[in-house]
Amino acid sequence: MNDSQIVWQGKSWSLRINPQTFANGEVVERAFIDHPGAVVLVPLVETAHGYEILILRQYRHALRQTILELPAGTRGWDEDWLICAQRELQEETGFRAARFEPLGQFWPAPGVSNELMSLYLARDLTPDPLPQDIDEEIEVVSIPLAELVEMAQNGRLQDAKSVVGILRTAAVL
Amino acid sequence: MNDSQIVWQGKSWSLRINPQTFANGEVVERAFIDHPGAVVLVPLVETAHGYEILILRQYRHALRQTILELPAGTRGWDEDWLICAQRELQEETGFRAARFEPLGQFWPAPGVSNELMSLYLARDLTPDPLPQDIDEEIEVVSIPLAELVEMAQNGRLQDAKSVVGILRTAAVL
Repeated sequence: MNDSQIVWQGKSWSLRINPQTFANGEVVERAFIDHPGAVVLVPLVETAHGYEILILRQYRHALRQTILELPAGTRGWDEDWLICAQRELQEETGFRAARFEPLGQFWPAPGVSNELMSLYLARDLTPDPLPQDIDEEIEVVSIPLAELVEMAQNGRLQDAKSVVGILRTAAVL
Repeated sequence: MNDSQIVWQGKSWSLRINPQTFANGEVVERAFIDHPGAVVLVPLVETAHGYEILILRQYRHALRQTILELPAGTRGWDEDWLICAQRELQEETGFRAARFEPLGQFWPAPGVSNELMSLYLARDLTPDPLPQDIDEEIEVVSIPLAELVEMAQNGRLQDAKSVVGILRTAAVL
């Protein structure tokens, strides 16, 4: 990160500032989050009535409300993406997956953060819970994929990574 | 924001920390970006060959690369959303729109930021450029909607707000 300076250092990410010089000589100080990346999971359940997805009702402190979102979690700086995916799936839903199918990567907020999210379709689930992080307040619900697709399209699903995850899943299944 | 404390104050957003106490008595300091919100625009061009979208190739300093993304911009804390939408559209693409159709709102990164993005389909475009922000390095391109839908689904489009914007647009048109 060259000449960038750490303004705040958290458990998993830091805020850095970079001075930038423009063609006209003006210097602007630009801040960004330096982030190790995260996994986003679409845990697929095949029922007699069609596909369902395990999704979370999770309290988000920045928003001061509970929102509906796919399981996701920050990677350790040196952590393997698939190991991270299995760990977060178990911590947040209580299930392991036998298969993780990559559905691409994306940047949730490239204007303020270098966070890269890796999206996986998690298949062939079996119960195998891990202790949750102390700072997570989570309820797991199972919702038909068709209903989530409608919510992703009409705006009722408001978490960007979940909209991307649900609509990419619908495109491949 | 009650007992939160400002760690860094930028031109448009700030980083704040909040101490949080959990059921077991443990206290965790949690940082989040306090953000006024942003608009995301899908500028629609109707050609003889079908729909095209004006989209940007923009250099992103946090990523140290140029990415493809829909026009978007941060709202002033007291700015009207539609005034912000028209201003950002003109600054970034050089066009005004006669109609802005709301396509819902979403949070790009609810784990680290309270930023809310308002998505609009911008229609009936006419050329009417405004000066660009000094710190933006932008090229405008026009790409068929069908091609962008494929890129949003297969992972070649990697900016989350743009994936949401393109797939919601395809769902309503």
